[in-house]
Amino acid sequence: MALNPNAIVAQSGGPTAVINASACGVIQESLACTQIGTIYGAINGILGVLKEDLFDLSNESPHAIEALKQTPAAAIGSCRYKLKSLEKSRQDYERILDVFQVHNIHYFFYIGGNDSMDTADKVNKLAADKGYELVCMGVPKTIDNDLAFTDHCPGYGSVAKYVATCAMEAGKDTEALYTADTCTILEVMGRNAGWIAAATGLARRSGQDAPHLIYMPEVPFTREKLVSDVKEVLKEFGRVFIVTGEGLKNQDGSYITADTGKFGKDSFGHAQLGGVAEILKDIIEREVGIKTRFNKLGTNQRSAMHFASLTDMNEAYRCGQMAVKHALEGINGRMVTLVRESDNPYRCTTGLALLSDVANGEKKVPREYINETGNGITQAMKDYVRPLVTGEAPVTIADDGLPEYMRFERKPVGKKLANYLEG
Amino acid sequence: MALNPNAIVAQSGGPTAVINASACGVIQESLACTQIGTIYGAINGILGVLKEDLFDLSNESPHAIEALKQTPAAAIGSCRYKLKSLEKSRQDYERILDVFQVHNIHYFFYIGGNDSMDTADKVNKLAADKGYELVCMGVPKTIDNDLAFTDHCPGYGSVAKYVATCAMEAGKDTEALYTADTCTILEVMGRNAGWIAAATGLARRSGQDAPHLIYMPEVPFTREKLVSDVKEVLKEFGRVFIVTGEGLKNQDGSYITADTGKFGKDSFGHAQLGGVAEILKDIIEREVGIKTRFNKLGTNQRSAMHFASLTDMNEAYRCGQMAVKHALEGINGRMVTLVRESDNPYRCTTGLALLSDVANGEKKVPREYINETGNGITQAMKDYVRPLVTGEAPVTIADDGLPEYMRFERKPVGKKLANYLEG
Repeated sequence: MALNPNAIVAQSGGPTAVINASACGVIQESLACTQIGTIYGAINGILGVLKEDLFDLSNESPHAIEALKQTPAAAIGSCRYKLKSLEKSRQDYERILDVFQVHNIHYFFYIGGNDSMDTADKVNKLAADKGYELVCMGVPKTIDNDLAFTDHCPGYGSVAKYVATCAMEAGKDTEALYTADTCTILEVMGRNAGWIAAATGLARRSGQDAPHLIYMPEVPFTREKLVSDVKEVLKEFGRVFIVTGEGLKNQDGSYITADTGKFGKDSFGHAQLGGVAEILKDIIEREVGIKTRFNKLGTNQRSAMHFASLTDMNEAYRCGQMAVKHALEGINGRMVTLVRESDNPYRCTTGLALLSDVANGEKKVPREYINETGNGITQAMKDYVRPLVTGEAPVTIADDGLPEYMRFERKPVGKKLANYLEG
Repeated sequence: MALNPNAIVAQSGGPTAVINASACGVIQESLACTQIGTIYGAINGILGVLKEDLFDLSNESPHAIEALKQTPAAAIGSCRYKLKSLEKSRQDYERILDVFQVHNIHYFFYIGGNDSMDTADKVNKLAADKGYELVCMGVPKTIDNDLAFTDHCPGYGSVAKYVATCAMEAGKDTEALYTADTCTILEVMGRNAGWIAAATGLARRSGQDAPHLIYMPEVPFTREKLVSDVKEVLKEFGRVFIVTGEGLKNQDGSYITADTGKFGKDSFGHAQLGGVAEILKDIIEREVGIKTRFNKLGTNQRSAMHFASLTDMNEAYRCGQMAVKHALEGINGRMVTLVRESDNPYRCTTGLALLSDVANGEKKVPREYINETGNGITQAMKDYVRPLVTGEAPVTIADDGLPEYMRFERKPVGKKLANYLEG
């Protein structure tokens, strides 16, 4: 390498409140070090690499880069483009290395979940095969909190804080108006793991507080259990507040709602869920005979920067920063992990895991975090999640009374290769 | 009156983030004055009066009363029990006066919307007919902002701040992931008036910001217009963010969704809406062919104390306080109103309107606040709503990282009359 090697940072998958904080950590550390030439952003994750849609982050203002910490979603752009095995998606992987080579890129920082770690790992292996010098480092990101080999994932603490607060607040609403609206269902995200639903249990400081019932994908769903649970809570408190994950499953492992429409699956092949709350509402209204409402926070839960966790924001930043530091130390093919050293006082440092290990792992809510009857959480779950929601990330409010969020200018870097994936 | 006369405060209808701030104003002012003996809370609005479910607010801690300002929903309890005309609901109105008489209650402070103002007005008229000394004062409350004779309603500024922020944040999410999730719909409340949907327009600081399209009940909905609107935005920005009120109507005035189920109407006879977002999603996926998601904030939008407007909170408190001050001055049969004296700097004082006028009025979003094509707002609407969302109401955070909200002990006052409406 004649010139200093360049680096790429990219974001992938569902956005979070703090994925930009991780990007900020990568960018500020890259700009501050002497070993990296230019740090590029790849617009919309790996799609931006494939299409050679890059922009030079040193052209962005230091103010905008700092403001990443306070901006939700993915300022560099995200995607759900799925690369398959090295054999099946060979052309894509080759193209990635071509783009890296022509822009002198030898560091790849990928912020995402297990699919993204898989992509980074495969790019890395192909580069090694071809003798192209490349360092690929992963930065964990997912509100779902389902990555293995890390105590928790940046993005989870913020969604946990927000949905628990939403459960508390909508629970107060149900409590106030239970003579008319007796049952409320709050549907939260979580395709295969109930971490987000479980976090709302933190809001239940006393028995009568919401949520009274929490349903997670880890526990097979039955109509009979729902009906008997609701009747029992109704008898005790005169009202019912339910939190449900979006991915509830029947005893046979099938989703209780199967969307068979045109857009029923995303491009990673994941089932697109929704409608669990409607199904529960229908069962309760028919079989218990009480009026039931539902709230579906949708993408608002993963973008709720206005009430994000400061702990989460700081850890997300740290993960990005450590990815660069480790890369410069000669570490390669690893994802930065979060290692909890103690609960009280909470102490957390970072560690490393193999990209390939993370790619193939999945961490569900362990049985000991779920209560015996499978409709709530235990103290162990509360102890796990409490430190992660601590502190409020700063919010800058503009003159119009709303938060100030940044947007990159993204002045395009000149393309040097033929078009790819266009049209 | 031998002893000092007593007072009742009650809350009615859908809760808001600041209806408790109004209650706080009533309670603190009542406790501080010398003319009022005991101030009672009627549990669950007029239902609590009818059932003689009262509690003495001087038994509650001053800390809990002060914490009302920071607690969403309705701490005294709310209801949707609808009283009809004096003829049709005669028995109920007589019962209310019986309960007032036996507890020496001569002041009635009712915090609610136009149905509640109607109830207060009719109780007041019956009392006058019977020669029972009673002062009935209304305190405005509705997130819908549809009360006439007041510039705006306490509760609206907070929901406006929150939904506009949610539109901004989910808009960032759609912007980040538009290659996969191209269209997002945010469904907000507003049965007949589009004030809440309109407020989200404040989030659109530049053309590419969300929301790109805002649909309100004031503008008749057509499938053709939706499809052409979406195609146009898609062409310009490559993604579409829509905010819709829950009460969209066809050209003939019927709701585009008619819930015909068992719980299709609330007990005021209002249609219970929902499903507008699903209808829009279905049209867009079929006729434009882009993947569409929706978020439905539901009761979370009206209880979002964690990001409420400080201006709204202060005005809500002031309305409650002024209701008591005016009552003690001998004013009767009036609702406290908010009177905007200037926009910039924003100055707002209180006024008074006849309960009967408010009961029969309804204020929709005026045509000049809606853009020409009926799919967005004008600068005049922005100028109207901006001051109302200013400032952030304080939030006390507990050790568990979540907000601290109060709950009254509500030690019951002994009943002196036979049961009513039981079982």
